[in-house]
Amino acid sequence: MWILRLNMTDRTYKLEAVPERYKNLGGRGLTSTLIYDEVDPMAHPLGPNNKLVFAPGIITGTSSPTSARLSVGGKSPLTGGIKEANAGTGWAPAAAKMRLKAIVVEGQPEEAGKYWMVAIRWEGDALKVEFMPADEYVGRNLYEVFPEVYARFGDKVQVAGIGTAGEFKYPNSGVVFNDMKDRPSRYAGRGGLGAVMGSKGLKFIIVDPTGAPGVEILNPELFKEGSKKMREALMEHPITKPKGGLNTYGTAILVNILNEAGGLPTRNFSAGRFEGAAKIAGEAIFETNKQRMGREIYNHACSPGCIIQCSNTLYAPDGNEIASCIEYESDWAFGADCGIDDLDKIGEMVTLCNGYGLDTIEAGVAMGVAMDSGVIPFGDADGAIRLLHEMGKGTPLGRVLGSGAAMVAKTYGNPRSPTVKGQAMPAYEPRAVKGIGVTYATTTMGADHTAGYTIAPEILSVGGKSDPLASETAKADLSRAFQSTTALIDSSGHCLFIAFAILDIPSGFQGMVDEINAICGTSMTGDEAVAMGAEILKRERAFNEAAGFTRHDDRLPEFMKYEKLPPHNVTNDLPDSVFDAVFGNL
Amino acid sequence: MWILRLNMTDRTYKLEAVPERYKNLGGRGLTSTLIYDEVDPMAHPLGPNNKLVFAPGIITGTSSPTSARLSVGGKSPLTGGIKEANAGTGWAPAAAKMRLKAIVVEGQPEEAGKYWMVAIRWEGDALKVEFMPADEYVGRNLYEVFPEVYARFGDKVQVAGIGTAGEFKYPNSGVVFNDMKDRPSRYAGRGGLGAVMGSKGLKFIIVDPTGAPGVEILNPELFKEGSKKMREALMEHPITKPKGGLNTYGTAILVNILNEAGGLPTRNFSAGRFEGAAKIAGEAIFETNKQRMGREIYNHACSPGCIIQCSNTLYAPDGNEIASCIEYESDWAFGADCGIDDLDKIGEMVTLCNGYGLDTIEAGVAMGVAMDSGVIPFGDADGAIRLLHEMGKGTPLGRVLGSGAAMVAKTYGNPRSPTVKGQAMPAYEPRAVKGIGVTYATTTMGADHTAGYTIAPEILSVGGKSDPLASETAKADLSRAFQSTTALIDSSGHCLFIAFAILDIPSGFQGMVDEINAICGTSMTGDEAVAMGAEILKRERAFNEAAGFTRHDDRLPEFMKYEKLPPHNVTNDLPDSVFDAVFGNL
Repeated sequence: MWILRLNMTDRTYKLEAVPERYKNLGGRGLTSTLIYDEVDPMAHPLGPNNKLVFAPGIITGTSSPTSARLSVGGKSPLTGGIKEANAGTGWAPAAAKMRLKAIVVEGQPEEAGKYWMVAIRWEGDALKVEFMPADEYVGRNLYEVFPEVYARFGDKVQVAGIGTAGEFKYPNSGVVFNDMKDRPSRYAGRGGLGAVMGSKGLKFIIVDPTGAPGVEILNPELFKEGSKKMREALMEHPITKPKGGLNTYGTAILVNILNEAGGLPTRNFSAGRFEGAAKIAGEAIFETNKQRMGREIYNHACSPGCIIQCSNTLYAPDGNEIASCIEYESDWAFGADCGIDDLDKIGEMVTLCNGYGLDTIEAGVAMGVAMDSGVIPFGDADGAIRLLHEMGKGTPLGRVLGSGAAMVAKTYGNPRSPTVKGQAMPAYEPRAVKGIGVTYATTTMGADHTAGYTIAPEILSVGGKSDPLASETAKADLSRAFQSTTALIDSSGHCLFIAFAILDIPSGFQGMVDEINAICGTSMTGDEAVAMGAEILKRERAFNEAAGFTRHDDRLPEFMKYEKLPPHNVTNDLPDSVFDAVFGNL
Repeated sequence: MWILRLNMTDRTYKLEAVPERYKNLGGRGLTSTLIYDEVDPMAHPLGPNNKLVFAPGIITGTSSPTSARLSVGGKSPLTGGIKEANAGTGWAPAAAKMRLKAIVVEGQPEEAGKYWMVAIRWEGDALKVEFMPADEYVGRNLYEVFPEVYARFGDKVQVAGIGTAGEFKYPNSGVVFNDMKDRPSRYAGRGGLGAVMGSKGLKFIIVDPTGAPGVEILNPELFKEGSKKMREALMEHPITKPKGGLNTYGTAILVNILNEAGGLPTRNFSAGRFEGAAKIAGEAIFETNKQRMGREIYNHACSPGCIIQCSNTLYAPDGNEIASCIEYESDWAFGADCGIDDLDKIGEMVTLCNGYGLDTIEAGVAMGVAMDSGVIPFGDADGAIRLLHEMGKGTPLGRVLGSGAAMVAKTYGNPRSPTVKGQAMPAYEPRAVKGIGVTYATTTMGADHTAGYTIAPEILSVGGKSDPLASETAKADLSRAFQSTTALIDSSGHCLFIAFAILDIPSGFQGMVDEINAICGTSMTGDEAVAMGAEILKRERAFNEAAGFTRHDDRLPEFMKYEKLPPHNVTNDLPDSVFDAVFGNL
C-alpha cells in the first residue's frame, strides 16, 4: 500500500510506503489523521500550505457490499476547520485496488489560472503517474466535459475533479466523481474542498485500475464471514433491502416523514412544515416516473457492489433524464427551504449543481437565505435557476451565493443564517429534532447531519427511540454515540446507510468489525472499533482547536433561540451545557 | 448625568440616572463596559439583542482643547467582537453638555425597511426626546440629506446617522457625524457600527444643546490647571502646534515618511514602497491647494476647541471642494494600496465614502483585494470610483465590497487578505513595522492602528525610539503599553493625537490626568489612570473570549509569513509567543 503525493508546485510526485501508524486507517480516519499531522491549522485553506487528501475506506475495493466510499479531507474554506467529505463512486474501489491508501495533493503553482490533470494507471507491476495540461476543460459544464474525458481516456477510467465552482474557489464547491454511468454526479460535496483542489491548479485525477492487484486481505476467512453478516443485515432490514424504502423511494422518502414530524425546514428555516411537501416527496418522484415511463422504476446504485441502491433518476415526459439522482437533502434544499414545490425544476437545479460543481445543500440553503433577504421571492423557481447559472458563471451575485449560506447572510445583513461554523444546516430542523441540533452544533465539520445521524432513533425508530422534541441532557449522549460510530463507518468505507441495518441487527455491526479485522489483521472488539471512531473525533477536534475554534463555535444560530418554529412553536431551548457535554465527555 | 435608552422595538425611551459604577467612565471605557455588561457576546450583531452605545469622553464638552471625541460601541458585524469606533465632532460636546453620559440604542422594529430618527433637545430644564419617521432620507447620498436636515432642525443641531451603507447593513458601514461646516464627514468608521444602527431602523440622532447646562466639573481649579498643561503641551510640540506638521500637511504628512521607511502598504500589501507616493502625500495636497487657490491654506479643526486642527480640504481648480478631509489612511487606502496616484480621484473617492456612509480604510483595502483578485486592475481610478458607486447603490458586487476586505478575499478565493479578526489593516505594513503588527494582531478591535500606535516610537521617534524592523520580544511590551494608554485617552474624550505631545512632554500627560480627576472628583495618579486603561482592555478581551475569540485570532494573516515584502524583503517572523505576551502579561 502506498501514499501517493502530488506536488502541484512543480508537478512532480512521490510514492511512499504507508507508515506503520497509518496501516490500520482508511477513509475519514486517514484523511483526518494526515491533515492533523501535516497541515498547519492556521494555514489559509486556499494557500500553498493546505493539503487535499483522497482516501478510500478500509474495506473499499473488496467484495463487501455497499463499501465503495471515498473520503476527501483538507482544511475547509467554508468552515476554516478540518473537513472530511465523502462520496460513493467507482473511483474509490479503483484507487483501493491500485493499492493507493491515500493521494495527498500538496503545494500550489506559481502561476494562477492554469490547470493540470493527473492520470494514474497500472503499467506492468508499477503505478504510472502523469501530469498533463487540463486548460481545455476549464470554465465548462461538467456534463459536457466528462464525455470528452471518457472519450479520451477510455471507459475503464474513474474521474475525480472540480467544476467551475472549484475553479472560482468557492467556499461552496465540491469534489466530483463519476457515477456508474459516468455522469459527474457523485460529490464529496460539503465544505468547499473543490476550491482547495482548484487552488492547487488541479482539475482532474483520473485513475485506471486495469491490471491492478486488488486489495490485500490478511484474513480471508474472517472477511468472508464478516461480509456475509453485513450482506444479510442489509438484505433483511426494511429500509435497506431491495425494493425496500430506499430502493423504492430514494432518500427523498424522508420528505413526508420529516414534514409530518414538523421538522422539515421551510422557507429558510422559518417553519417546520411545507404545504408542498407531498409534491416533492420520494413517493412523488416514484409516481411521476411511473406515469411518464409507464412502469415502476426502482432505484440504482451510485457505485459498484451496493445492495441498498438508493439513487433515483427523475425522467422527463419525453424519457430524457432531468436529474440523477435527487437526494432528500437536495430535494429539500431547493424545495421546501426555497418554498418551491415543482419537482422538475428541483431536478433541473440538482443537475445544474452537478454540472457546475456545487454542493446542493449549501447551494439550496444559500438560495433560501437570498430569498429571505429579498434577492428573489420564495417559490421563484425560475429565479433560482437563473441564480444557479450565475453561480456557475461567476458573476458577482453568483460568487456571493457560491460562497455559501453564511456569506449570503453576511453580505445581505440578514441575522437568519441557518449555519454552524459557517456551514449550512441540512434538512432537519434542530428546534424540532433536538438531537440532530446537538450534532449540527458540535460536530467538527460544521452543520452536518451525516456526522451523527440521530434522526434514526428520533424520527425513524431505528436503533432505539428518542423523543425528537425533548430538550434533555441525554441528547448529548445520543449525539456523541452516533458521532463516534459514524467516524468508524466513515473510515470503514461502508456507506453510512448501512447504519440503518447494523443499528437494528447486531450481527451486521459485528460483520463490519470482522471485515476491518480481516483486512488489517487486527482483533478489535466492537467497542474498540467505536473507540477508534472516538479517537478520530478527538484528532479532528484538536485540529479545530488549534485553528481557533472553541465551545462557543459549538452553538446553533442565535435566532433559533428567540424565533418560535411552527407547527410545534419550539425554540432551541437546550442549555449550553448539553452542547458542551458532547465533547466534554468524549 | 443620564443614560438615555432608546427602545427601537416600540420607539420609546427611558432616562436613567447614571449608576455609581459608571460615574467615572466615559468614551470607550463606558461604551465597552456597557456592552460587556448588557450584550450577550453570542448575540448576532444585527439581531435584536445587540446594542449600540454613544458616549462622549470624560472631558468632552469642557473648555479643554482637542477633547470633542465621541465613542460609539457595540458588537461588530465586521469582526464579531466588541467594537469601539470614535470620531471628533461637535455632536460629542453637545451631548455632553446636555448631560448625556451615554445613549444606548436597543431592540429592533418588527418591520424591516422602515426608518426613524430621534431628536433630543433641552426644553426648560428637561430633555425632550422625540421619535419621527425618517423614510424620506433613506437611500440617498448624505451630502444631499444633511442640508435638508439642517434646514429642518436649524443650524444649532448636531447630527449622528448612517448612509446607505448602514441601511444595507454592510459590515463596512460607519456612523456619521457632522463636522464644523455641517458636512457628513466625521466618522466613527470602523467595524460596521452603521449596520448596527441600520438594523435598529435608526437613521439619525439629532441633538440640539441650546440651553443645556453644560458639563459639571467637581474641582474647577484642578481642571483649569490640567487643561492649561494640556494646552501648553499641544502648543509646544512640533507635530501638534499651530502651523506644525499636522496643521500644515494633515495626517497625510505620513505618506512620504512611511514610504521612506518601506512600510507604506502598496497594491494590496505586496510592497512597502509606492512609486507614486510623493504625488499623493500631504505635501502634495498643500502644494496643490496653494497652486489652485493662490495662497497657503492651513488645515482646520474637525470639531470645536481643537488646537491641532489637522483636517485638510482638497480644492478643485475652480475653487470647489473635492474632499474635506483626506486623512492619511484614506489617502493611502485609495492611493498606494490601490496603486492610484491621482489626488483628485482619491479625493473624489473619500467624498463618495462620506456620502454613502463607508469607512475609507475598509473600503480602500477591500478595493485593493478586489484589484488583487482581478476584478479591476491596480491603478484603475475610474474603475474604483465606479465600484464605490456600486457600494453606495447596493449592487451585488457593491455588497461584496461593502462587506469589507476579508469578505472580498473570501468571495474571490484570494488568500491575500490583509485583515485581522476580519478587519482591514490600516496604512502601516506590519512586516516592515513590527510593533504595529503586534497591535494589529492583538487588539480587541481587529487590525487597528489607533488601538496602540507604536508608529510613534518606531517611525516618528516620539515617546522614545524602537527599531521598526527588529523582531524582538520587546514589541509585545511596546504594544501593550500603547494599548493601555490608548484605552485611557479614548475614554478621556481627547483626540488620540494629543499623544504626540503628552508622550514627549510629561506635564501634558499629567494635565490629562488632572482634568479627569477634576471632573470625576478622584485623585488618580498617572499610573492608576493607565491601569484604568488596562482594565478597559481586559473587559473588552473578556467579551471577545465569550464571543469565541482565542489567541489564534491574535495573529497576522498567513501570507505575511511566507511572502517577502520589498524593499526590505521582510516577512512576519515574530514568534507566536510575542503576540501572546501582549495580553498574557496584561
